[in-house]
Amino acid sequence: MHEQDGISPPEILSSNSAASIKAKRKKQPSIKELVAGISSGNITDLSRAITLVESKNKTHTKKATDIISACLPHSNKSVRIGITGVPGVGKSTFIEAFGSYLTSIGKKVAVLAVDPSSTLSKGSILGDKTRMEDLVKDENAFIRPSPSGDSLGGVARKTRETIVLCEAAGFDTIIIETVGVGQSETAVHSMVDFFLLLKLAGAGDELQGIKRGIIEMADAIVINKADGHNLKAAKSAKVEFNRALHLYPEKDSGWIPKVSLCSALKQEGINDVWTLIQNYLKTTKANHFFDKNRNQQNKFWLLQTIEERLKSDFYSSTKVKSELQHQITRIESGKTTPFAAAEYLLSL
Amino acid sequence: MHEQDGISPPEILSSNSAASIKAKRKKQPSIKELVAGISSGNITDLSRAITLVESKNKTHTKKATDIISACLPHSNKSVRIGITGVPGVGKSTFIEAFGSYLTSIGKKVAVLAVDPSSTLSKGSILGDKTRMEDLVKDENAFIRPSPSGDSLGGVARKTRETIVLCEAAGFDTIIIETVGVGQSETAVHSMVDFFLLLKLAGAGDELQGIKRGIIEMADAIVINKADGHNLKAAKSAKVEFNRALHLYPEKDSGWIPKVSLCSALKQEGINDVWTLIQNYLKTTKANHFFDKNRNQQNKFWLLQTIEERLKSDFYSSTKVKSELQHQITRIESGKTTPFAAAEYLLSL
Repeated sequence: MHEQDGISPPEILSSNSAASIKAKRKKQPSIKELVAGISSGNITDLSRAITLVESKNKTHTKKATDIISACLPHSNKSVRIGITGVPGVGKSTFIEAFGSYLTSIGKKVAVLAVDPSSTLSKGSILGDKTRMEDLVKDENAFIRPSPSGDSLGGVARKTRETIVLCEAAGFDTIIIETVGVGQSETAVHSMVDFFLLLKLAGAGDELQGIKRGIIEMADAIVINKADGHNLKAAKSAKVEFNRALHLYPEKDSGWIPKVSLCSALKQEGINDVWTLIQNYLKTTKANHFFDKNRNQQNKFWLLQTIEERLKSDFYSSTKVKSELQHQITRIESGKTTPFAAAEYLLSL
Repeated sequence: MHEQDGISPPEILSSNSAASIKAKRKKQPSIKELVAGISSGNITDLSRAITLVESKNKTHTKKATDIISACLPHSNKSVRIGITGVPGVGKSTFIEAFGSYLTSIGKKVAVLAVDPSSTLSKGSILGDKTRMEDLVKDENAFIRPSPSGDSLGGVARKTRETIVLCEAAGFDTIIIETVGVGQSETAVHSMVDFFLLLKLAGAGDELQGIKRGIIEMADAIVINKADGHNLKAAKSAKVEFNRALHLYPEKDSGWIPKVSLCSALKQEGINDVWTLIQNYLKTTKANHFFDKNRNQQNKFWLLQTIEERLKSDFYSSTKVKSELQHQITRIESGKTTPFAAAEYLLSL
């Protein structure tokens, strides 16, 4: 636990109940108080800070930025694991089993999600915490559903800032779940150290219908539900995947992706997945890919954030808003080209 | 041919030789003169205007924009055909045969290319016009190699503006060649009415190694070199492709992609490709997809141009240039987050 800058006597902040009494007395804790709370592992303060990150209110956003900056020196000391897989593959059961295994060996586990559809559909991942009955009660685990947001970019940014907060709160293993839809894997891949693809065997799912890009991103393919009468199919799927993985060029990480079997339901093979990740960390820390990759990810997010802001500032300007449709109409009637119209809008 | 606004007596502009005498007398024709020349189908003026479009000189760019605006009312009356295929598939031979067939039935054919690698590699497509011996000598054909440029965006924009000029010069069939590498197909797909994928049979090339995205974009798959001892393999590849195409969802165009066989070398099956395109035009003009698609493409290019300009303006600003690396260093040493650094750079 980190020092508390002497803001308040440590004993007052040392338990959740004391913090909640404090919360009733004073509804809006200061930035310093929240940072101190987070640094001491206070879950209420962590949740409050995440709520500020997720807020659309500009004052909250400013506050969130300051909290994250203060938390930065305490973050970065974790492993960040991305987990993807199509609906039905057993992601919740796997994360429940995997997370519980990790806390049993002394880890502190935060589970986050990137699900840009969560505002639209009821079926948002992690939305229903009860799907992870044991983990949600585990005091060394912290589960937070996907932030809601209108764009993948927004959801991804918020999740990435939440990682910093969780790490500052002492969580050393960050699991980020995403669903195998659209571009969300790419976003998650760009914020984790290790990317795990969860698959099923015996569902006609081995090689057909796999998005090439996702296989390329995976550091491990874990075949879930490898139990009972599924076991034989899972074993042959493992052979198939190993063959498929060999068709891809070598990774910058120097790591050769592995295929592993597990049964999340029967809690079999879960420790193998962790051993595999440990080996990955050993390899990529030795060859410095681990740090290089985090730096590259940071640069990616810097450029990404700049470009999104440039666009949103441009399109939300009053002049552009009132002229854009007119220019589109002019283009449609052959009075101007897209390029000339762009020049005009940029000159406003 | 279009009216010439009385700039100069029509007889002076009516032949290439008269225009070239004029060119010697006066090195820089005015915008009005170039537009008049293009409208009368003068190839020298068309080439000059394209050179202005491709120039990096700001005065030239301004001049090009004015010429394109003036040409707009005369453009749009064509069919734009994109042709892609990996190197070795026989694109040049196919375009030579297809283009010659089209001029033989009275069409005026312009052949352009989008090849972002042309500045780097010697093997640029259309770079060597002698690969299309007959077409290059055909007075109803106009061949222009890919503009050189540092980015796909730049190359694509220039090609798209060149389409307008070619159409204003009376070319009614625009063929845009691209090579099956990177994102260039997507760029070409977004500027054509019909997208043709050229393939080979009997090269272990039927279904493996196909980029899913390209198949999805194709309105027709034409299997080239379907002659001699290749014919049997080509026929079975046709069956395979037809089966594969049925796995994709229905297109917005209402058109069901077709598979066709040809031998560009023996000039067999070339007319079938044109019949197929005619049927496509009939279908998509009847259901209004043709116009809707061109409008959508225009909107895409409008937004695309705006976003590229916003980025290039931002990153080329002196303040940003001098601060960007410093901020990246601060991120790498954990002193700031990508998001805070982005905010700072945007505030400069």
